[in-house]
Amino acid sequence: MITQQVKSPTLIIDKSNCQKKIGHMVDKAKKSNVRFRPHFKTHQSLEIGRWFKDYGIDSITVSSLDMALYFSKEWDDITVAFPLNYLEHEKINQLASEITLNLLAVNVESIVQLQKYLKFDVGIFIEIDTGYHRTGIRIQKTDEIDKILEVLDQSTFLHFKGFLTHAGNTYNAKNIDEIRVIYCETEKQMDMLKEKYIFRYPKLELSGGDTPSCSIIEDFSSFDEIRPGNFVFYDMVQNQIGSCSKEEISVALAVPVVAIYPERNEIMVYGGGVHFSKDYYELYGTKLFGQVVRFTKTGWAILDGIYVTKLSQEHGTINAPSDFIESIKIGDILGVLPAHSCLTADLMKRYLTLEGEWLKKV
Amino acid sequence: MITQQVKSPTLIIDKSNCQKKIGHMVDKAKKSNVRFRPHFKTHQSLEIGRWFKDYGIDSITVSSLDMALYFSKEWDDITVAFPLNYLEHEKINQLASEITLNLLAVNVESIVQLQKYLKFDVGIFIEIDTGYHRTGIRIQKTDEIDKILEVLDQSTFLHFKGFLTHAGNTYNAKNIDEIRVIYCETEKQMDMLKEKYIFRYPKLELSGGDTPSCSIIEDFSSFDEIRPGNFVFYDMVQNQIGSCSKEEISVALAVPVVAIYPERNEIMVYGGGVHFSKDYYELYGTKLFGQVVRFTKTGWAILDGIYVTKLSQEHGTINAPSDFIESIKIGDILGVLPAHSCLTADLMKRYLTLEGEWLKKV
Repeated sequence: MITQQVKSPTLIIDKSNCQKKIGHMVDKAKKSNVRFRPHFKTHQSLEIGRWFKDYGIDSITVSSLDMALYFSKEWDDITVAFPLNYLEHEKINQLASEITLNLLAVNVESIVQLQKYLKFDVGIFIEIDTGYHRTGIRIQKTDEIDKILEVLDQSTFLHFKGFLTHAGNTYNAKNIDEIRVIYCETEKQMDMLKEKYIFRYPKLELSGGDTPSCSIIEDFSSFDEIRPGNFVFYDMVQNQIGSCSKEEISVALAVPVVAIYPERNEIMVYGGGVHFSKDYYELYGTKLFGQVVRFTKTGWAILDGIYVTKLSQEHGTINAPSDFIESIKIGDILGVLPAHSCLTADLMKRYLTLEGEWLKKV
Repeated sequence: MITQQVKSPTLIIDKSNCQKKIGHMVDKAKKSNVRFRPHFKTHQSLEIGRWFKDYGIDSITVSSLDMALYFSKEWDDITVAFPLNYLEHEKINQLASEITLNLLAVNVESIVQLQKYLKFDVGIFIEIDTGYHRTGIRIQKTDEIDKILEVLDQSTFLHFKGFLTHAGNTYNAKNIDEIRVIYCETEKQMDMLKEKYIFRYPKLELSGGDTPSCSIIEDFSSFDEIRPGNFVFYDMVQNQIGSCSKEEISVALAVPVVAIYPERNEIMVYGGGVHFSKDYYELYGTKLFGQVVRFTKTGWAILDGIYVTKLSQEHGTINAPSDFIESIKIGDILGVLPAHSCLTADLMKRYLTLEGEWLKKV
């Protein structure tokens, strides 16, 4: 059993489950005839990246220039889906000299500044705010879009690629129907933009596709590419939204039991905020940091109603019924499906597959 | 100005402010005639550790065996203030062969298991739960304490050192008076234990001293040692509890401005959950991830009423009044006093002092 290799908090990955989901997303993208440009900020691993290569994927998304530098060892077409930070022009030039690099513009100032330093070709997507209200330009603000396009039209190294949106408002959805509504609204806005600009820029592309939408929607043909990332692992937040079943979650943090308090129905594990992150989801008004599972010979089994309810820096508190607590002893290894797998993976230095293989990370 | 060195999220440290606080805590400990065994889980840096050495400190606390291994390069007396995880017996033996190592017992099972593997001397503190209800044994449960002592009495390598408590319940305090009450209750319980066991173990020590208590209380003479950690940086959570003023906080995350949305009073910065952590505090029912500051020639100045209100993986949202927003442009560097500096420091790879010196971390 994989737990024999676990001595301290360890992120266990179900490789075949991951690969199945990658294959499924590849098929979905093909059916809609869109490019699949997976977001690699979730796993941050060259080794997991190769599982995508096996399915013919040749372009990716990341969330920082540092991550782009890491992945540029094996990938030559990368979009950094974060508003461009011109202060990092040295990294931008380094990347742009080596690979096909796309960056996001959300205002004209950043590209005007970047131009002062740029020495190589960079593709620019204009980020559109279709309702998430984090970054991006709202479609009504065509004057702002036009200002950016004007700079791009006259630029030597900056090339307009199209419009990109991250409909992160799907993360506020409570169920599948709400995701569908948000997807439709997003699609409609992006379509309107394309209609307006396609004659001036016949090659412009629309890039979209957050994990909730890509999990629920079947037809993405309005877009030219989709960029889901989290789906490769999924997590309890996605489960709550309705993106996935608990069985589709493919990472579990393995944690050793260090203390048991039957009088307050608590098991204390070695696994805290520096392993899980402090992200949480809510169930009936209670903050939860993860769903507890028991490891089996071939994977893990979900323990209904048993959750991580508190985290400090290194300690985790599991709340469980008496009969379960009686079955546990000090030194046992329990598993936890994390609230937010991207942040848990970011904190952990490597993965251990169910087959016992260690996978490195950024 | 230090911001000229900042291109991406960077943890700025006010060295002289830190050193002043270390000196102050050293003095406090001396006045109470107790050992000062600072907790190094907050800064996790050999270089910052040396600032403590300069004040004559020769023993430290950490929260994991990995951290102990890192600090054992320069420190030879380390307490790992986390319930001992016997699965890591290889690391325990390695450390115990090289330095004076103290571990925490919270149950008899873990020490019975550890004994099977142990080849070198290890000091054991029994952790007492004086009201925090995370880990430790309640003082009423003398049968559990006696069971552990029985094993220790007969052990070749395990040596009883005393009783240790982390009165983390001070973190729920709303003001200084509440901290005082918790400290008194903690002290009373630990005193009772000492009185009960001192005749059997005349050398037994009492170890206590969380940051809120150590910040507020002047006389620790009931204890033999204190272990505050967070005070070296402090943060907004500590400020809310009443442990410190905002001016005493000595780390600020420097973050570049990447987008400005005056219509919703928001500034977007490059700095998210992977830099700050997702820990937060609440002010008038609103979740806040940090207090915004403006860097000056010699340090930083607090911007009252301006906070980080949202975080995603790499994005931070700052809420600010219009006149402030009008003064900001893309590429500016703002500072943020974090909600929980231990977790922010854990995520960042190094520090930059106000004098421009880079300090490494674990």
